[in-house]
Amino acid sequence: MSERNVPATMKAAVMTKPGEIRIEERPVPQVQADEVLIQVMAVGVCGSDVHYYEHGRIGRFVVEKPIILGHECAGIIAAVGSSVTRVSVGDRVAIEPGVTCGRCSACKEGRYNLCPDVQFLATPPVDGAFVQYMAIREDMVFPIPDHLSFEEAALNEPFSVGIHAAKRSRLQPGTTVAIMGMGPVGLMAVAAAKSFGASRIIVTDLEQVRLDAAKRLGATEVINVREEDPVARIKELTQGIGVDTAWETAGNPRALQSALYSLRRGGKLAIVGLPPQDEIALNVPFIADNEVDIYGIFRYANTYPSGIEFLASGQIDAKSLITDRYPLAQTQDAMERAIHNKSGSLKVMVYPNE
Amino acid sequence: MSERNVPATMKAAVMTKPGEIRIEERPVPQVQADEVLIQVMAVGVCGSDVHYYEHGRIGRFVVEKPIILGHECAGIIAAVGSSVTRVSVGDRVAIEPGVTCGRCSACKEGRYNLCPDVQFLATPPVDGAFVQYMAIREDMVFPIPDHLSFEEAALNEPFSVGIHAAKRSRLQPGTTVAIMGMGPVGLMAVAAAKSFGASRIIVTDLEQVRLDAAKRLGATEVINVREEDPVARIKELTQGIGVDTAWETAGNPRALQSALYSLRRGGKLAIVGLPPQDEIALNVPFIADNEVDIYGIFRYANTYPSGIEFLASGQIDAKSLITDRYPLAQTQDAMERAIHNKSGSLKVMVYPNE
Amino acid sequence: MSERNVPATMKAAVMTKPGEIRIEERPVPQVQADEVLIQVMAVGVCGSDVHYYEHGRIGRFVVEKPIILGHECAGIIAAVGSSVTRVSVGDRVAIEPGVTCGRCSACKEGRYNLCPDVQFLATPPVDGAFVQYMAIREDMVFPIPDHLSFEEAALNEPFSVGIHAAKRSRLQPGTTVAIMGMGPVGLMAVAAAKSFGASRIIVTDLEQVRLDAAKRLGATEVINVREEDPVARIKELTQGIGVDTAWETAGNPRALQSALYSLRRGGKLAIVGLPPQDEIALNVPFIADNEVDIYGIFRYANTYPSGIEFLASGQIDAKSLITDRYPLAQTQDAMERAIHNKSGSLKVMVYPNE
Amino acid sequence: MSERNVPATMKAAVMTKPGEIRIEERPVPQVQADEVLIQVMAVGVCGSDVHYYEHGRIGRFVVEKPIILGHECAGIIAAVGSSVTRVSVGDRVAIEPGVTCGRCSACKEGRYNLCPDVQFLATPPVDGAFVQYMAIREDMVFPIPDHLSFEEAALNEPFSVGIHAAKRSRLQPGTTVAIMGMGPVGLMAVAAAKSFGASRIIVTDLEQVRLDAAKRLGATEVINVREEDPVARIKELTQGIGVDTAWETAGNPRALQSALYSLRRGGKLAIVGLPPQDEIALNVPFIADNEVDIYGIFRYANTYPSGIEFLASGQIDAKSLITDRYPLAQTQDAMERAIHNKSGSLKVMVYPNE
Repeated sequence: MSERNVPATMKAAVMTKPGEIRIEERPVPQVQADEVLIQVMAVGVCGSDVHYYEHGRIGRFVVEKPIILGHECAGIIAAVGSSVTRVSVGDRVAIEPGVTCGRCSACKEGRYNLCPDVQFLATPPVDGAFVQYMAIREDMVFPIPDHLSFEEAALNEPFSVGIHAAKRSRLQPGTTVAIMGMGPVGLMAVAAAKSFGASRIIVTDLEQVRLDAAKRLGATEVINVREEDPVARIKELTQGIGVDTAWETAGNPRALQSALYSLRRGGKLAIVGLPPQDEIALNVPFIADNEVDIYGIFRYANTYPSGIEFLASGQIDAKSLITDRYPLAQTQDAMERAIHNKSGSLKVMVYPNE
Repeated sequence: MSERNVPATMKAAVMTKPGEIRIEERPVPQVQADEVLIQVMAVGVCGSDVHYYEHGRIGRFVVEKPIILGHECAGIIAAVGSSVTRVSVGDRVAIEPGVTCGRCSACKEGRYNLCPDVQFLATPPVDGAFVQYMAIREDMVFPIPDHLSFEEAALNEPFSVGIHAAKRSRLQPGTTVAIMGMGPVGLMAVAAAKSFGASRIIVTDLEQVRLDAAKRLGATEVINVREEDPVARIKELTQGIGVDTAWETAGNPRALQSALYSLRRGGKLAIVGLPPQDEIALNVPFIADNEVDIYGIFRYANTYPSGIEFLASGQIDAKSLITDRYPLAQTQDAMERAIHNKSGSLKVMVYPNE
Repeated sequence: MSERNVPATMKAAVMTKPGEIRIEERPVPQVQADEVLIQVMAVGVCGSDVHYYEHGRIGRFVVEKPIILGHECAGIIAAVGSSVTRVSVGDRVAIEPGVTCGRCSACKEGRYNLCPDVQFLATPPVDGAFVQYMAIREDMVFPIPDHLSFEEAALNEPFSVGIHAAKRSRLQPGTTVAIMGMGPVGLMAVAAAKSFGASRIIVTDLEQVRLDAAKRLGATEVINVREEDPVARIKELTQGIGVDTAWETAGNPRALQSALYSLRRGGKLAIVGLPPQDEIALNVPFIADNEVDIYGIFRYANTYPSGIEFLASGQIDAKSLITDRYPLAQTQDAMERAIHNKSGSLKVMVYPNE
Repeated sequence: MSERNVPATMKAAVMTKPGEIRIEERPVPQVQADEVLIQVMAVGVCGSDVHYYEHGRIGRFVVEKPIILGHECAGIIAAVGSSVTRVSVGDRVAIEPGVTCGRCSACKEGRYNLCPDVQFLATPPVDGAFVQYMAIREDMVFPIPDHLSFEEAALNEPFSVGIHAAKRSRLQPGTTVAIMGMGPVGLMAVAAAKSFGASRIIVTDLEQVRLDAAKRLGATEVINVREEDPVARIKELTQGIGVDTAWETAGNPRALQSALYSLRRGGKLAIVGLPPQDEIALNVPFIADNEVDIYGIFRYANTYPSGIEFLASGQIDAKSLITDRYPLAQTQDAMERAIHNKSGSLKVMVYPNE
């Protein structure tokens, strides 16, 4: 194992129970032959981290013992296992957080996000990235160019969701997309739509600060749903035709219905956001008569290389998304900030080695 | 105009008002330069014909004056217009009933079923096929081989819906499909799934006569939903995995939900049937988590040539679908039969020139 | 017919025989019910125009009587036929030059560029656009925004070839493309690749002026094949892997071979340029072992709306392509310029109403 | 490790040098935790086995030490490693012979046949299946139903090549395909085309015995290229239009050219066979003008489950392909038979445990 100045122990921000994160001293993990050790430099706080912190579970995933959260991350390779060939110590890398089996039919068909045996960072019982060092299989890390910052590279994770939505819903360059909900995932979806060459990106939210952020990331028209009916406005903006593609990212039933009704005949709808309830009333004759395609979106697959290309291109002002910055020691504060400043904070970021 | 023994007048079965069909004497239509005159030999009674007969409207399409119903048809070319080159007098043909504009963006993109200017037989105010002679643009007729009967060729219309569902939902040979609802469209969808090489075709209905018909057309397993829970049974038949593809053809909300829940992760759902109500509760987290694709189905496009190939192959026992046969003079009886013998009749057929 | 100040006669630049273009006075055409009359404002000189001018034929298309050349054009609607609804007098429009039948199987499948009955401007015996007024079916014209000039709109025609290549070869955003040959089609292909979100666009030519133009249009790396081996250089630029996609636009056998060898495993090759000879030696085991896809490209389909969006976005410096400008009276000079200044001229443009 | 009656040693047919195969006693391999031990029941002799036997190399793969050939195989699971969950001792299975890494970009994108680190049976230096027992990773084995014989299951390997060609070239049900070359791969490609619902399968070869075999497997028309010009005949059979899809399986330059010229406009060509020379002259203007798609084919991916479904369906007379049967002790005779009876033998099969 080649390495560089790796200490024996490190700090880790451990969620000991919902609502409580403590900084603990932990041994720096040993890497397996096919793993690399990451010195973690930036970790975004995701809605799922906040959800585990507040509720201790997401659906069937239940926090049953102390867990380290955080999965939107980037860092420096501090050591490599004996069989590692793809990367070297000192490489700056973005980290894809879901380690898949590579052997099930989902993996073999290229849809590894549906792998039943995936080990996903910060999904119980797998520990995550609010730590100083972390070991992960070498194929999960992707080198980034020098001019791309770690915090931008960490945003490749939520960005990947937007890229995956663009691919799944076959977003065509030169077409029109509506994106409902301008949380971090929605905002990075705007960046994805721009990267895919959408000519018009119409977005909705009820917070002006988020709509303003959307404009910086590439939205061509914004709709504040407190002030305007989104479907009526989208129809007006598209000469009554509707958009080619719509993505719902908010997990809001009404936003989902608006997304559907904003489509032109033959339009495509991606469902990115998870609503709190299971059943949502959808207009089925509308779907059939207009030959709508609907695509469920779960995480992403094969998005990291192109995501890094887009971020590195300088066309995307991803940095403008980061509103709050904390050291590892204040991870709990970072969580609380994300919870209590929903109208002002966009992305809260933690820096474990600063 | 070349022709053969075409009389000056003909019989037509005219729906003078809902619930009343009268046989009238009408002039045989003159063909335009790019049209052919069809001597209509067989016309299937479709659910939409019955719906207009009973209710006088389907959604925004309202019968406001006498109309001739019928659009599942085949016949012989009796005359051709001056510029016709594709077919000749005497050709036996299946008739695609939707005359599209060829100039709108939907037509140019190959999705002509979404053409806003389509003229579709038996959709108000366009007259249909319960007549002895009918003029239609030459590109709407497709020659059939001698050994294929007119009544089988007429079934190419409902068959086309199944073929279109198979294409839209990317049915792969060697995979497993569940089809909900074994009315005529569902039954022909079974034939389509078989033609596309599905290795297992699991079907549901609540009438045993329809399930028996499904077996003749290629269903490998049948589920009577009066006796068994379809989702539980499908899971059992697929080792708990679910089917690759599911089609709902009944327009039944519960069948749609069953179709959704019967899918494996990454499965594909086609919505073929139109439910009577607009809003149906669908499990949106299920769609997202499992990356389900949902495809609305509206009529069909580019299905006639392959449909004829399948019907002519001898692999499909389409004839077994036809349970009732009437001459044109008894078109009203044919309608009543379709309405009042739902548990026994499958496809009712009218023969205008016998 | 609504109209505006349309004269009875007009000037037309008629190729009376190869090598001779005369200005003739012709009647302004009458529009059919479904046609519009265009006051032609800008027409690009295409390689095919030059080829007819020099050789009097392209393959099976032979000039047998005087013909008006020119098919890359834009203008103002001066009059509309009685049934026209899509556009109005005064609209500024780009013109798609191939009027397709809308009824053959190619048209119905959305591949109307393969329509055997297409009427294509400036392809014998159909007259083209080097005229002051021209009638064409209303669905062939596409309104352009006020800030887009006619000469840029005329470039939507060669741009469409690049867009079509991008669609056919499934160019993915964030990937790497090599484009061989920086003539006008190659240069507009660079613009297409950029519009489709390619992250790296590597181009080759042997004229520095063209490579410089390519940089203005979005090329990220240029290779002068007089100085460097393109395959070796592309491999070097891609860490030995090769590009995801390659397009040959020059019609040069060696460039085609280079395009093939520059691909990574699983790469995609589009053949855009027509070589002078029929048979070209290709490495077939290379194609098979690496699972290369090869796509022949013939004109384009369904590209005009998105092409206009891209041109109107301000991201493409299309104007920099236009090096020479002539009035209609000097159409022959425009042809001669295109022939004799190959190393300096990029696109030569004619303005029939200036 | 669970197991059943596994001996300590076994017989193996070892190619000690080109042209010489000796039966050696070898230890039965130990399985790793994620492997299964296969009692090998049937192994087909492939053209690549014969090529290694005759020439000691295929391209860059050189036999440098004794090697066991054979990769078309099926057997019984005799033991399972400690972490195996997918299969059990006693399961009858078909074996996919290429063990891929699951971690490279090709694997992650679902194109694992392009994995640079694949370990493929009987490709130097990896030993193959002419043995009594063989260990392989558990995800490479696929259970077969009781009524499917081992020798048929072994044919799933060449069958997979045809299935992959059908998928790559987007073979549509109800369309027409031409297949050039009726060796075992070509014959199984006929079975694949039939399984995918092709309505017409036109095949060529110069040996009548192979054309007769093709008919048994589903060919609808056969062309003996000694007697007829294949392109002229195919055009005649398709009313001058050409076929929708063509596959070249013989590795013959002239057959490849015929395949290309037999296509309709917009047709698709798959290159399955590897010609002995590298460069083959192809008509590039034909490819461009007709917008032909060409797909290189290298092995296969994700074909085993559907291949087994097709073989188990009873629709394919795969057994008729097997003309010669040998015990393991006569593996060298099997090779010689395959070499010297090209006009009579189709598939030669070896049974290591009979």
